[in-house]
Amino acid sequence: MEADIIAVGTELTCGAVANTNAVWLSQRLLEAGVAVRRQITVGDRLDDVRESIERSLGAVDVVLLTGGLGPTQDDLTREALSAALGRPLESDRASEEHIRAFFRSIGRPMPEANLRQAMIPAGAMALANAWGTAPGIRAEAGQAVIYALPGVPREMRETFDRYVAPELRERASGAAVAVRVLHTYGLGESIIGQHLSDLMTPGRNPSVGTQASEGQISVRVIGRGASPEEVRRLVDADADRIRALLGDVVFGEGDDTLPLVVGRRLTELGRTVATAESCTGGLIAKSLTDVSGSSAYFLRGYVTYSNESKIDLLGVPRELIQSHGAVSGPVAEAMAAGCRSRAGSDYALSATGIAGPTGGSADKPVGLVYIGLADANGCAVCELRFGAHLNREAIRDRACKTALNLLRRRLYGMRT
Amino acid sequence: MEADIIAVGTELTCGAVANTNAVWLSQRLLEAGVAVRRQITVGDRLDDVRESIERSLGAVDVVLLTGGLGPTQDDLTREALSAALGRPLESDRASEEHIRAFFRSIGRPMPEANLRQAMIPAGAMALANAWGTAPGIRAEAGQAVIYALPGVPREMRETFDRYVAPELRERASGAAVAVRVLHTYGLGESIIGQHLSDLMTPGRNPSVGTQASEGQISVRVIGRGASPEEVRRLVDADADRIRALLGDVVFGEGDDTLPLVVGRRLTELGRTVATAESCTGGLIAKSLTDVSGSSAYFLRGYVTYSNESKIDLLGVPRELIQSHGAVSGPVAEAMAAGCRSRAGSDYALSATGIAGPTGGSADKPVGLVYIGLADANGCAVCELRFGAHLNREAIRDRACKTALNLLRRRLYGMRT
Repeated sequence: MEADIIAVGTELTCGAVANTNAVWLSQRLLEAGVAVRRQITVGDRLDDVRESIERSLGAVDVVLLTGGLGPTQDDLTREALSAALGRPLESDRASEEHIRAFFRSIGRPMPEANLRQAMIPAGAMALANAWGTAPGIRAEAGQAVIYALPGVPREMRETFDRYVAPELRERASGAAVAVRVLHTYGLGESIIGQHLSDLMTPGRNPSVGTQASEGQISVRVIGRGASPEEVRRLVDADADRIRALLGDVVFGEGDDTLPLVVGRRLTELGRTVATAESCTGGLIAKSLTDVSGSSAYFLRGYVTYSNESKIDLLGVPRELIQSHGAVSGPVAEAMAAGCRSRAGSDYALSATGIAGPTGGSADKPVGLVYIGLADANGCAVCELRFGAHLNREAIRDRACKTALNLLRRRLYGMRT
Repeated sequence: MEADIIAVGTELTCGAVANTNAVWLSQRLLEAGVAVRRQITVGDRLDDVRESIERSLGAVDVVLLTGGLGPTQDDLTREALSAALGRPLESDRASEEHIRAFFRSIGRPMPEANLRQAMIPAGAMALANAWGTAPGIRAEAGQAVIYALPGVPREMRETFDRYVAPELRERASGAAVAVRVLHTYGLGESIIGQHLSDLMTPGRNPSVGTQASEGQISVRVIGRGASPEEVRRLVDADADRIRALLGDVVFGEGDDTLPLVVGRRLTELGRTVATAESCTGGLIAKSLTDVSGSSAYFLRGYVTYSNESKIDLLGVPRELIQSHGAVSGPVAEAMAAGCRSRAGSDYALSATGIAGPTGGSADKPVGLVYIGLADANGCAVCELRFGAHLNREAIRDRACKTALNLLRRRLYGMRT
């Protein structure tokens, strides 16, 4: 089964707000066994909405509309649905009573305009909205079913969960879908693609695809089949194969992030960490403390932006900075070692580099970053050279992720 | 002039990520004088992408594709474009050389798969992508122009600004559009809306709208008219009126951010700042150092997550923590004062609070945060109580923005 999602609202097409409803609905539909073919967003224009409905009706099994059910003149979903179905709008008695009762309950007079919200196409069904005044609408057209849901995210979700999800799960039975998403750090997308080329052939089930997001490459496995058990087996088998093919660059799955994985491992081992940052300016500490409960393993962070603060707070020898420069392997090492001993932590991460856009030289260009990792056995330093294609924000982001990934690998005894 | 935006990627239709590109592009297109008719999202299926292109080509003046230009087999925008235009793919010599040079610059061997990225439909033009390997594509079909842009947001934005925006502004001339966006911090959206109600009537030119983004409320003024001069005059008059109505909650315009505005003012005054953070975990330091050149005024940051580190690094008296708790006004004050004296800075910001989701109590609930600001005249503390509708990330974000806004107001001599 396939669905189209049509979001209605000029606030979306003019870029004032993001269509978060589409993200949420796509996930829920997939979980109900319905794949989303298209997400479409149109402004508050009758012909555009009608035409979108007509096109989708001819192509998919389920059409989900969101928005355009409000009481004002620019709310046109009802009219567009009526035109697309070729059925006149009629007032739904129960909805009318619900709207009157809503205004009585908040003690305000009902504007006449709100009665528009009780209008639904002949033969359609109103989906009572306990969370606002706009009822949803359910209609059938040939083999397809159409749902029009409120645009307010909370009302949309409640209406979907109450009326739409149960019906779709029933209709989709016999077409199960399962999804797993594996996250990697350390290899480029094309290399990952080479490793997985056998799995990524078009038309294969499960489908395997990659996605790059700021240096992190995720691999998505979507399986379809007759039963949940069968499809789960297919997807699990692929995920196992992907893990075997990619090895330890896979750092997690689903909601996992590098700080979360590092934090979980530190907790398991009962170890602590501290940070000493120059070019990343607090980003590594911020990322580690994104995780609730990080106070169990994150002790403290030093943001040593100036040379004086590196000397004063971390005990980096002044001569070391003078002879090698603040952006150098020896200084990264001294920062990590000094941080570890002063914080009394098991591990310490340091970063010093040139995030740009200014401050680079032929010798030390923008994008040059040194990461240090100190533990009981000493201190490792790695030199990173990010190309000119990354801006300041991206250089800092990659430096942070590389530092966290280095710590992850150390915590798991992997080669660093 | 009207445009359709077609985003390609199964990660979008399966709800794994939000289509933030569509939001950004819709805004920029509007600023260039082009209205967006539809935003369409399709998965990585050749026929769906091709069909979407064909439909849009018949309906609008400009078609903007994003995504599907990567090196792997599931990147199909090139093939779909070729099929929709009825023109074969050919390798673009300059793009091929660019891709080879990219891999030389990062010192890695080039996977053969990356050469796919140099393929463009015959007669089309490659749009060099200085920020990645995937070039964009520009093609014409009858009266319409098509641009295919990379899906990575940063690369998409750079490519759009360099190649697409200038051409569209020229094509759209005759229908002048001007946009100004004012940013505020400190008042809620409905209060801002009340202040501006006279300007926000539907159908008015310029149109004035508000948009909330993580606590920051922006006011967008979009004017339309026959000449650039006329429309600029209209929009400037509105912006002046908005500034007069809202006063000093307006902190900037356009690309301004709180850290940028604070940094600019510190530079003007020749003053310095340092930070001492508990619950924000480095976020304030990270935000201040987001700004290139921040080393001129940002001296150092302390991320004092543990009690010991507050005592050790900032000289917070142990008794103070014992009697008031680490999350308290007196501790925020001692953190800021200790930070300022140890860093030798003109200003110091501190933050201590309960970001949650755990760690709250009836007395000190999740969302309670104290911000301290120390300067030569002493130390001010403000208590924030964020409601249960904000999660950990949002609480940390608002605490950081409130701290930066407090410093901004102090630097401009406004009431704090």
